[in-house]
Amino acid sequence: MSEARAELAGITFAIITVSDRSARREREDLSGPELKRLVEERGGRVVAMAVVPDERDVIKSKLVELCDGQQAPEIILTTGGTGVSPRDVTPEATREVIEKEVPGLAEVMRAESLKKTPMAALSRAVCGIRHRTLIINLPGSVRGALENLEAVLPALAHAAEILRGKISDCQQSAHLGHQHHHRHRREGE
Amino acid sequence: MSEARAELAGITFAIITVSDRSARREREDLSGPELKRLVEERGGRVVAMAVVPDERDVIKSKLVELCDGQQAPEIILTTGGTGVSPRDVTPEATREVIEKEVPGLAEVMRAESLKKTPMAALSRAVCGIRHRTLIINLPGSVRGALENLEAVLPALAHAAEILRGKISDCQQSAHLGHQHHHRHRREGE
Amino acid sequence: MSEARAELAGITFAIITVSDRSARREREDLSGPELKRLVEERGGRVVAMAVVPDERDVIKSKLVELCDGQQAPEIILTTGGTGVSPRDVTPEATREVIEKEVPGLAEVMRAESLKKTPMAALSRAVCGIRHRTLIINLPGSVRGALENLEAVLPALAHAAEILRGKISDCQQSAHLGHQHHHRHRREGE
Repeated sequence: MSEARAELAGITFAIITVSDRSARREREDLSGPELKRLVEERGGRVVAMAVVPDERDVIKSKLVELCDGQQAPEIILTTGGTGVSPRDVTPEATREVIEKEVPGLAEVMRAESLKKTPMAALSRAVCGIRHRTLIINLPGSVRGALENLEAVLPALAHAAEILRGKISDCQQSAHLGHQHHHRHRREGE
Repeated sequence: MSEARAELAGITFAIITVSDRSARREREDLSGPELKRLVEERGGRVVAMAVVPDERDVIKSKLVELCDGQQAPEIILTTGGTGVSPRDVTPEATREVIEKEVPGLAEVMRAESLKKTPMAALSRAVCGIRHRTLIINLPGSVRGALENLEAVLPALAHAAEILRGKISDCQQSAHLGHQHHHRHRREGE
Repeated sequence: MSEARAELAGITFAIITVSDRSARREREDLSGPELKRLVEERGGRVVAMAVVPDERDVIKSKLVELCDGQQAPEIILTTGGTGVSPRDVTPEATREVIEKEVPGLAEVMRAESLKKTPMAALSRAVCGIRHRTLIINLPGSVRGALENLEAVLPALAHAAEILRGKISDCQQSAHLGHQHHHRHRREGE
């Protein structure tokens, strides 16, 4: 693992696959393991994995259990249930447990997917924060989930650092690279 | 009608014009008929048309009546009331009746309009689902309404098929064209 | 001031800096004065400035006080508190006081910032209307605040005119420049 790719070094993740069929073991969960592989390849640590059915209350309970625990992961990735089928309720469950929405992450993921297919406009993914955990909805397909995660990886790493209080305002600027010196001198907040 | 353009074949629509002046018959409703023409040109079937004033409760009642009826259309297009004037309340009425929001459709429509004018940022259109009907807010101007509808037509056709349960997950992949075989083999959800 | 740059002529503004440290006078407020300079350079009139801590209730009270007063400004700019730190609550305070959201303005600002840094996806800025005042959340950094404001200036000027009822539907079209004659003849709403 080259340093350039270890952008998630030290960050803890949970991965939740949302799928009726995978929860009933009628279908192998492929997206969860593929997301785990990508996260670990970039230096992240996956501390929990789960498969739940497309049930709003079950999804909510799992999210709350993870975020409110003593060993809460810094980032939770969900995969599945973001479309327009009647059973797709992951965004609704997510919105009910987050305290703050981060709409820009979902916008970036959709904009990226739209370069591939106009159907990406139907992804209803929600991203937001509960306590100190950032929850990211990803689509259910392996390809869609990996592509969308790649699209926001740099921002996720930065968000995790802010959420766990490891960097201050001033240090935040340093993450913006060439803008650092200028911003450091002039920054008002 | 060439097959290439019949992308809305078999899909049922209702069109609601939201305008105080058109409701009072002080102004001819041009957007409603123009939307009907475009929908029919692409193979869609318009089963209901209505003109209502910019009143939140009236708009809500009309949307609920259409979505909850036995012959609910698969897609409802509204035109008008999406701006920032004090009387513009179509997005608020829509948000109150939908069960699920589909933000990507509104994002795509605004992104398309922004190529023409920076004022497009003021369009507050909301898109979402009630039961099995997809509701799409379009702007009030004829040109804006037609341009925005064109921008999301392929996604609308696909959404309608999923909502009425005509295609399964696996078949959904087929709609993504060249990605089909790859996605079919690997898809986790 | 050349006429071409006086796009905010006659529009009244309030500017609220949201920052714990600036409110405690531990840090000079740079963004507020810089925003004031830019607004005035374009012909706008700043009628109120304030510095408040990152407290949801304090931010809400200040927004309500300004919007509900007899001399309500046409536009309120906030700077700071839009990120993902636990203390960042400006978007939540804003959402609680607005009657209508204008999501396109926040989308345009994020899209503009994303050209500079992927971290822009973490800006949670909200824009919306309370009574006849448009509230715009801007980031806390001087550079980010100025860049984001520049990105939406033409739309803000137009929105202010509609909100104060100075232009009608028909006149609105005229602001869209070359589209005017065409739109004027055909417009349905």
